[in-house]
Amino acid sequence: MQIKDPLRIEVLRGGFQESLHLVHAVVTDSSGKVVEGWGDIDFLTFPRSAVKPLQAIPLILSGAEERFQMSTAELAMACSSHGAEPAHLRVVSSWLERIGCEADDLECGSHWPSHEESAHDLARAGSYPVALHNNCSGKHTGFLTLARQRQFDLKGYIQPDHPIQKEIRSILEYMMELDLKDAPMGIDGCSIPTWGVPLRAIARGIARFSTGDQLTKEHQLACKKLRSAMVTEPYFVAGTDRHCTRVMKAFGGTVVCKTGAEGVFAAGVPELGLGIALKAQDGTRRAAEVALSKILHQVGASPKDPDFTIEQPLYNRNQWMIGSVRPLV
Amino acid sequence: MQIKDPLRIEVLRGGFQESLHLVHAVVTDSSGKVVEGWGDIDFLTFPRSAVKPLQAIPLILSGAEERFQMSTAELAMACSSHGAEPAHLRVVSSWLERIGCEADDLECGSHWPSHEESAHDLARAGSYPVALHNNCSGKHTGFLTLARQRQFDLKGYIQPDHPIQKEIRSILEYMMELDLKDAPMGIDGCSIPTWGVPLRAIARGIARFSTGDQLTKEHQLACKKLRSAMVTEPYFVAGTDRHCTRVMKAFGGTVVCKTGAEGVFAAGVPELGLGIALKAQDGTRRAAEVALSKILHQVGASPKDPDFTIEQPLYNRNQWMIGSVRPLV
Repeated sequence: MQIKDPLRIEVLRGGFQESLHLVHAVVTDSSGKVVEGWGDIDFLTFPRSAVKPLQAIPLILSGAEERFQMSTAELAMACSSHGAEPAHLRVVSSWLERIGCEADDLECGSHWPSHEESAHDLARAGSYPVALHNNCSGKHTGFLTLARQRQFDLKGYIQPDHPIQKEIRSILEYMMELDLKDAPMGIDGCSIPTWGVPLRAIARGIARFSTGDQLTKEHQLACKKLRSAMVTEPYFVAGTDRHCTRVMKAFGGTVVCKTGAEGVFAAGVPELGLGIALKAQDGTRRAAEVALSKILHQVGASPKDPDFTIEQPLYNRNQWMIGSVRPLV
Repeated sequence: MQIKDPLRIEVLRGGFQESLHLVHAVVTDSSGKVVEGWGDIDFLTFPRSAVKPLQAIPLILSGAEERFQMSTAELAMACSSHGAEPAHLRVVSSWLERIGCEADDLECGSHWPSHEESAHDLARAGSYPVALHNNCSGKHTGFLTLARQRQFDLKGYIQPDHPIQKEIRSILEYMMELDLKDAPMGIDGCSIPTWGVPLRAIARGIARFSTGDQLTKEHQLACKKLRSAMVTEPYFVAGTDRHCTRVMKAFGGTVVCKTGAEGVFAAGVPELGLGIALKAQDGTRRAAEVALSKILHQVGASPKDPDFTIEQPLYNRNQWMIGSVRPLV
């Protein structure tokens, strides 16, 4: 197996290349064996939200999911970067209520809904965003649920030395087979720690998550539940016009995937026993999205939706198609 | 003079590099002589909105500016990519009225104000965006003004074969000393043609615009008026928290600059006789902004505002500073 050059994703305008992205990517099996690679397969990557599915595992291991009778949509939202569309907010709100918390307990900070129409509806209603609208509020409600189950103090659950973040770090270490003690640490958009890891470790982690290989029975079961929730309710993992949702729908449950800020994607193809991790060197989302579609095609995953394309059209302000984003051939 | 490697702009999180941008850039004098260069100084670049100041020149040459008694703010807005803040809309509206046009005559298409707060205010008022809110509505009002002056049919003024766009093409050819006949053509976000040109030609064009060198007396005067309008009213060239506005303010009139979509910047430093053109290869704005600040420092332009920094801080959803964007040293 030979590592290829970084994937090149080009932005076309009028048939000419306007911009160019480099993407590092790697495909491994659950043992970490590299099946395909492009660029620096050990690129130091802050996985950001791409490991949310792994961060949700303790919810199930701890018995919290059972005790609080979490729904499939809630499990999907524990792994989500959602658009704060009305249905997203309803799910998180009722979940928060069931665990005896309120939006003020969320320490993720607030921002306007990333789903533009929902942001404008919020403004139109004369309201302003609260922590509930943060794209990470599902994951954070998961943290609060785990804290309830473990009877931890809720306050400061985002801090690296809080037992919640220690448990999250442990599950990442277990799934990626890494020691994060000396890993570079940054603070994520939602204020929890994020550790820089080699891209290959993310691929291995998501491969293990997707296949259940090399995990304890309990971990296998937890991963299976989360995977099943994500592909059953892909809308609750992201939302309208979002790539995670689009891909999971188009591949009819045979692909599980999660994006992270700064051009990261982690995806698993259970039936092929593979995990995919990629990072657009420049951190752009469009490059990561097109690269993921390209790699899924490359490894032989096939969309059930015949309209699914790797290339993404670009439209201007009059809705004319003026270009596209596609892999450079 | 030796061409250096492309500028590297890094995104730091927790002190570690998370993402990396490559920027091609060139500094020339008005004759096109290269003073400094990084990467591919002839990188094929769609200048997009970065050449709006050049596209505004015919407004003055034609006598339209005089006939319609255009204000300084209106001249600045002819060169703008504005945020559709209330003051921007007031200027464009009254200008449209004065030339006997209305917002419906604008063929740029509509989008929500790029200034986020103004977008939310618009929604809060129960309204929806129209062409007036398009960041290019100032430039397009300039086109309509020119069409009035020339007594052209307004309809279709965005089409490549309309006499307005032919005149715009001619002025670009004159200023950049290029023949655009066989240049790659794309369609811009606002639906007018945009031609791919070597980065160096953009630098030369903006150097000539900034210094007036090698131009006819009429062109010199037109450029001087526009330059003066831009640095006198930098808020009307972009808006709140925008890099064009920030730079022109910070350099107290000694730098004139204009950004373009997909990571482009054109800037002039009249007193040094220089033009700068740069293109982030991946099309990201943050890379282009930091690269411009870096190059201005490099060529010896000095900000009057002591708080102006090259490095840009990054904040998360709790407003914690979690990283920055800066040139790689």
